[in-house]
Amino acid sequence: MNNQNNTVLVTENMTALPPPGAPDIEIARAVKPWPIFEVAQRKLGVAAHALIPFGHYKAKLDLSQIDTTSKVGKLVLVTAITPTPAGEGKTTTSIGLADALNAIGVSASVCLREPSLGPCFGVKGGAAGGGRAQAIPMEDLNLHFNGDFHAITSAHNLLAALIDNHIHWGNELNLDARKVSWRRVMDMNDRALRHTLVGLGGPAHGQPRESGFDITVASEIMAILCLAEDRKDLQRRLGNIIIGRDRDNKPVTARDLGAEGAMTVLLKDAIQPNLIQTLEHNPALIHGGPFANIAHGCNSVMATRTAMGLTDVVVTEAGFGADLGAEKFIDIKCRISGLRPDAAVLVCTVRALKMQGGVAKDKLDSVDADAVKLGSANLKRHIENMQKFGLTPVVAINRFPTDDAKELSIIKEVCLSLGARVEEAQHWAEGGVGAKAVAEAVKTILDGEAPDVQFLYEDDLPIDDKIRKVATALYGAEDVQFNIAAQKQLDEIHQLGYGHLPVCIAKTPYSFTSEPSELGAPSGHILPVRELRLMAGAGFVVAICGDVMTMPGLPRKPAALSISLDDDGEIVGLF
Amino acid sequence: MNNQNNTVLVTENMTALPPPGAPDIEIARAVKPWPIFEVAQRKLGVAAHALIPFGHYKAKLDLSQIDTTSKVGKLVLVTAITPTPAGEGKTTTSIGLADALNAIGVSASVCLREPSLGPCFGVKGGAAGGGRAQAIPMEDLNLHFNGDFHAITSAHNLLAALIDNHIHWGNELNLDARKVSWRRVMDMNDRALRHTLVGLGGPAHGQPRESGFDITVASEIMAILCLAEDRKDLQRRLGNIIIGRDRDNKPVTARDLGAEGAMTVLLKDAIQPNLIQTLEHNPALIHGGPFANIAHGCNSVMATRTAMGLTDVVVTEAGFGADLGAEKFIDIKCRISGLRPDAAVLVCTVRALKMQGGVAKDKLDSVDADAVKLGSANLKRHIENMQKFGLTPVVAINRFPTDDAKELSIIKEVCLSLGARVEEAQHWAEGGVGAKAVAEAVKTILDGEAPDVQFLYEDDLPIDDKIRKVATALYGAEDVQFNIAAQKQLDEIHQLGYGHLPVCIAKTPYSFTSEPSELGAPSGHILPVRELRLMAGAGFVVAICGDVMTMPGLPRKPAALSISLDDDGEIVGLF
Repeated sequence: MNNQNNTVLVTENMTALPPPGAPDIEIARAVKPWPIFEVAQRKLGVAAHALIPFGHYKAKLDLSQIDTTSKVGKLVLVTAITPTPAGEGKTTTSIGLADALNAIGVSASVCLREPSLGPCFGVKGGAAGGGRAQAIPMEDLNLHFNGDFHAITSAHNLLAALIDNHIHWGNELNLDARKVSWRRVMDMNDRALRHTLVGLGGPAHGQPRESGFDITVASEIMAILCLAEDRKDLQRRLGNIIIGRDRDNKPVTARDLGAEGAMTVLLKDAIQPNLIQTLEHNPALIHGGPFANIAHGCNSVMATRTAMGLTDVVVTEAGFGADLGAEKFIDIKCRISGLRPDAAVLVCTVRALKMQGGVAKDKLDSVDADAVKLGSANLKRHIENMQKFGLTPVVAINRFPTDDAKELSIIKEVCLSLGARVEEAQHWAEGGVGAKAVAEAVKTILDGEAPDVQFLYEDDLPIDDKIRKVATALYGAEDVQFNIAAQKQLDEIHQLGYGHLPVCIAKTPYSFTSEPSELGAPSGHILPVRELRLMAGAGFVVAICGDVMTMPGLPRKPAALSISLDDDGEIVGLF
Repeated sequence: MNNQNNTVLVTENMTALPPPGAPDIEIARAVKPWPIFEVAQRKLGVAAHALIPFGHYKAKLDLSQIDTTSKVGKLVLVTAITPTPAGEGKTTTSIGLADALNAIGVSASVCLREPSLGPCFGVKGGAAGGGRAQAIPMEDLNLHFNGDFHAITSAHNLLAALIDNHIHWGNELNLDARKVSWRRVMDMNDRALRHTLVGLGGPAHGQPRESGFDITVASEIMAILCLAEDRKDLQRRLGNIIIGRDRDNKPVTARDLGAEGAMTVLLKDAIQPNLIQTLEHNPALIHGGPFANIAHGCNSVMATRTAMGLTDVVVTEAGFGADLGAEKFIDIKCRISGLRPDAAVLVCTVRALKMQGGVAKDKLDSVDADAVKLGSANLKRHIENMQKFGLTPVVAINRFPTDDAKELSIIKEVCLSLGARVEEAQHWAEGGVGAKAVAEAVKTILDGEAPDVQFLYEDDLPIDDKIRKVATALYGAEDVQFNIAAQKQLDEIHQLGYGHLPVCIAKTPYSFTSEPSELGAPSGHILPVRELRLMAGAGFVVAICGDVMTMPGLPRKPAALSISLDDDGEIVGLF
């Protein structure tokens, strides 16, 4: 790489940064952020009055004050191979790519999900990128941020309170208290709330019944907020939420309870996209954070669309590997919103492919070309999968110092054999300049003809066939198998007239099968479907294949115990 | 009143307001607020960089950037007679008085509690003053505001999660799961959460135990936030929270669990006071909202102290009538913080005194001088009570159109016979100018010698004698009676070395007795003490006398059902 170019591209701030490998928080704090109105003005052309500031370095975009109709930027989806404990760096690559695009003169922004507060107190670590590819202020992003998750928690729990209150005061809708499926939520890792009895204590305190809590990101309202086109669409979808059944087993909705208006009021600010900046002062729209298993795992449609109205290229990320994240991005988010990606980037690392080839985590530092070769079957499957959507991805090899030339060349061969461009990326160590080659490759694709993006299935395919299609086409499965309960739910969903909805498959992200230990690119397996959940508000049917945890617990030594403020009021222990 | 003066005093905005009697929200929306940095700059001398904006009309004051040491403003406590459904208008009078002081040329601010979100969806109505004496933006204030309550909810529930997690992973502290007194909180009216079982579902999901939820304003953390001097004091108090007992019945604290650091991190922004404005663009510091029964019911010490460092006069309000609110303000907030009021205003209405005299709510429009005379015993008791603290209040008669001259003169006689100044106030209809007479009376007192404010009891009086002192001196009780459980708790609190703490009496606010229907100024009764709760973090002992509801329920027809956004995105039905 050309050193002189480096010097030009590195911003005044980046030169003074702690060396690569310094803690993320040290790097983040070494950068002097631009006032957020300056980011908005210089990078998005958005005037200060159209921002709703939250402090000096965060804001919401007031969509009533912003014209997003005069431009339609290109959309780049960042996805990855099957995740392993080795780490792939999808968020880091998304941020690095946006910085790199700006560095080569393209007006680009990055759209990401908001992290959940609860898990920060469990296992150490935030979610704002890393190294020299971060979104800041990372402390705020990982804590209360701009209050969106709290608003979702409030709206969710208001509906829950209205349900129990309805039953308490006479149950006019004839709700079956045993079949209330709407639980409560909290943005906290709290296993003791998974299964609860509520309404105890006597007649003054409601109707006793079994219930429980999920973490806020698992709320259907989170999925709804991320799929809504605007406030009216949000309210319509909130009204469609099925909260349980009546005594005739008919679905009862939030609209039947009259709850959707007040819920929308609680969400009126939360639906406005949030703006922060990367370490290189490029715009990062961070908005919404639905679970990637029981929901679709990408940031809000409103944020993506806003970013496309304000910058020429928008880099966005979908959760987990391409089999789950990219599939849901296209088959759910794109289908519902009308958005289409113009290019895709598939992130991999030598280390992760080594793990896919069977190497243990503590052996990843040793060169092992054979393991990489074996593991690259996983990469190959993901590239082929993306091609089924009509997208040949640019493969970004997120470089580690331990990577060997032989290992790298094996990966490159696989990519080239499938017609995919492949580039190394060093944004973690170098910031945007480190991802310049990826950015150039992406730009070449964007400058060419738009891809003909295809859904994997059409709306009118029955739900079971949709699941079968995803399993056989993407996971390499031979078939799917519905257990008796799921079969019954399937019939019911069709009878109720929801057969046209897309499916959202909740399975382990660590394997193409339902068994996390099956690495590489297994095939011929059967995907077991245990349960179907109708998310009538969000607008998809969740197919649960294996255990899905909707309320995490804290570990034996939670990070919370070492988190505090130092004498200067700076957070220690959170990252 | 002088019309010409009126014209001068009314701001440009107020002249264009809807007529008195228009809905509060219409009046509020008719005023064009100043940008909050302008309020800060012009009214507080605080520069924009020392604000943490939340939108354009709300901010937090960044106390690290503000010098509050060069001034010590005078403090005016607004309190009231015993509350009735007729309404007294304590918040309205506090706001009106601050506006009136500014109108007569005094630099004044108002310090109030933040309202709770949950109750807004129960019975219609917000809490930001009313008529032409309001704090704006009232919608935000009544919903998520600047996120303080959500932060308190998170910090509270993190501690709860850490407790259950500690038990789950082996219970090193030997916590007695049956004696965990730390519950969870939610800012919602949800009766079904009052009594719950948590930890059900098998060994992977924690230890089953009885527990429940309180509304967030009832959290000890809310009381702590409002009493803390600064961040360090906050953390110290959080660490002192007693969360339950171990198997040897020894108290276990949040510090024993190592939770106070992470809790402080969650509260790091919440401790900064919030700034909004009155309809007349005067500074309103709205911060904290502890329950007025099981806590001390006034805004944060940090907000009061900040306001005193920035304006010459600070008007603040305490919850319920003077027997509860003013007593706790002085015996708890002032004792702990070192603050002292320089004057007090006691709010009453003709209608409320009529109710105290036995008139039913639907008969209040009729003139009834006898009832007023009878009811003014209540007013008399409150004035005498305030004098026991060394404060002769200015009595503000909050005028209603139905008030009769005879009725008014009865009230005035009572006040004058006790040496108290009394003035009529019409801020609800007229804004600040309407409370000019009260403001002048207050100013006269402030210009005179500072009162010698006395606590009702000294620290070293035993807890039971403290309660007895309050009951006999203020409530007119003959004695207090501890039931067996409370007696046991009393002994234990003394044994544990907490006998020096002040007491916080939780009883009905509607009577001097523990029986809400006993109006006027009853005496000779016995105050029953049912339970003592040691709030070691907040630093007081709660004496529960009668039923105390720490988690409200929703009514049969909750306001939530008629709350929504109109086509312009404006909230309807909330106020």
